[in-house]
Amino acid sequence: MTPDQALYWLDLLGTFVFGLSGAMLAVRRDLDVFGIAVLAVAAALSGGMIRDMALGATPVAALGTSHTLLAAFAAALCVFFFHRLIEKLSKPVMVLDAIGLGLFAVSGARKALDFGLDPLPAVVLGVLTAVGGGAVRDLLVAETPRVLREEVYALAALLGAVIVVAGDRIGADPLPVLILGAALAAFVRILSVLRGWQAPKAPGPRD
Amino acid sequence: MTPDQALYWLDLLGTFVFGLSGAMLAVRRDLDVFGIAVLAVAAALSGGMIRDMALGATPVAALGTSHTLLAAFAAALCVFFFHRLIEKLSKPVMVLDAIGLGLFAVSGARKALDFGLDPLPAVVLGVLTAVGGGAVRDLLVAETPRVLREEVYALAALLGAVIVVAGDRIGADPLPVLILGAALAAFVRILSVLRGWQAPKAPGPRD
Amino acid sequence: MTPDQALYWLDLLGTFVFGLSGAMLAVRRDLDVFGIAVLAVAAALSGGMIRDMALGATPVAALGTSHTLLAAFAAALCVFFFHRLIEKLSKPVMVLDAIGLGLFAVSGARKALDFGLDPLPAVVLGVLTAVGGGAVRDLLVAETPRVLREEVYALAALLGAVIVVAGDRIGADPLPVLILGAALAAFVRILSVLRGWQAPKAPGPRD
Repeated sequence: MTPDQALYWLDLLGTFVFGLSGAMLAVRRDLDVFGIAVLAVAAALSGGMIRDMALGATPVAALGTSHTLLAAFAAALCVFFFHRLIEKLSKPVMVLDAIGLGLFAVSGARKALDFGLDPLPAVVLGVLTAVGGGAVRDLLVAETPRVLREEVYALAALLGAVIVVAGDRIGADPLPVLILGAALAAFVRILSVLRGWQAPKAPGPRD
Repeated sequence: MTPDQALYWLDLLGTFVFGLSGAMLAVRRDLDVFGIAVLAVAAALSGGMIRDMALGATPVAALGTSHTLLAAFAAALCVFFFHRLIEKLSKPVMVLDAIGLGLFAVSGARKALDFGLDPLPAVVLGVLTAVGGGAVRDLLVAETPRVLREEVYALAALLGAVIVVAGDRIGADPLPVLILGAALAAFVRILSVLRGWQAPKAPGPRD
Repeated sequence: MTPDQALYWLDLLGTFVFGLSGAMLAVRRDLDVFGIAVLAVAAALSGGMIRDMALGATPVAALGTSHTLLAAFAAALCVFFFHRLIEKLSKPVMVLDAIGLGLFAVSGARKALDFGLDPLPAVVLGVLTAVGGGAVRDLLVAETPRVLREEVYALAALLGAVIVVAGDRIGADPLPVLILGAALAAFVRILSVLRGWQAPKAPGPRD
């Protein structure tokens, strides 16, 4: 499998799991079938669309084929019929969200490098790709986005993106680097929730 | 009138009515004259701007001429002076919103087809164009967007976009298809409000 | 210094002060170090990214070099360690926000003119560049954006953008016009807060 193909499948898998997280949130908020589809699509596509619009990779990949949308709608359908089952899996939305986070962080950073961006912007665009979909999803139901509420969310995406950019700098084979980055990002995110890790806050009292 | 010209005028009309809906919301929230202008422009332009940025049709059409902005400002001005009159018309914001919804759904789907998008992405971009402006408008005043709160809102836009894409597939004359799609979308939306239609929710209790 | 260079430095300065305003808001909301970085970047980059995506100036300037991001991160770092000092300066977030507002209004309008936009769209894109970052910043912490809450916020940006476009029409030397526009916009904004100026609201009772 070439890196391009790997990126394609990773993106599709990330789309599906982010779609699940969006659809699960919609069910919890008691939204109807259209609300479920809208939140699934918003969560699944927003991050990649922001990435592509910022890079000028247009028409955005999410709309370039039907596959991305089909993955998001498949997620919405799964949730519509099986949300009770999905909910019963332990902390499922969190775990799915962590996997999607890792996948989008590496795919975003990789695409940024392919468009000639410098290392720092490539890392930031990876993080933006990863947290963008979740942020739009949460904003649509008037929640403060998870990236601001929950500790170490941005850090996990950062780790995945940094691994991809660092691997590119040392000339490593892209595919294992993508997988390593996505897995480590998801792992750190899940661990941080289970262990209740907290990032440091600015020292001193708030005036 | 060519389809291109029709699209131009439909877009301008949709801009005006969405501008009215944004400006009316601003008056209800007791915003000042700048807030009225900002919400009118946000409601009127956001959907089309998202559409064009996603397609790479830049500079976005909304800023390519002065006409779109003048239509939005005209709407803001009408509301500033005549909001009591506009409010008295029966459920006016809802009806205007429905007409704008239909117009933007068909123009979004049509432009997506012109940029070579596949049928499914073209339909989704039509829906996004139609619901995007209202979503940005509602988010700016910290409301959950109408597309998630109200039943059958997304469905009406979907219907309009599907008609345009289906008409394109069977090689129908574009102009009547655009008008039919916009009218049917607006009609379904208005009917759904008057009749209190509800879309199905995911079966089973929420855990 | 050429207008291009001036625009570059004005943009960087605006990025830094908007980054400060985002980071200060994050500290007040008791967010952790990642939340501070996210809000600094969101406040600093969103306006310019929307401007560039709308113009098709991609990859967006904010990600074209590392400088913009470094300015935003420097702002986050300053706030992380010195937020008590920064807070003690009189109404500091407001003043910084006013300066960033003026800088982005003129740089946004100037870039729009460089891309061949007509005067009215160029003015509006200047305003959007100026208020976009603050709006995204406020939306992320679930606040109604300042542009809608506070009087004369949009007017100040409008003034800066109009000066740039008017200067361009009469063929004035760009650099002093940019500085004049940014300074006047910031001045009007600060004065309006200190004096409690209010913009007119739509006449008549709200039904």
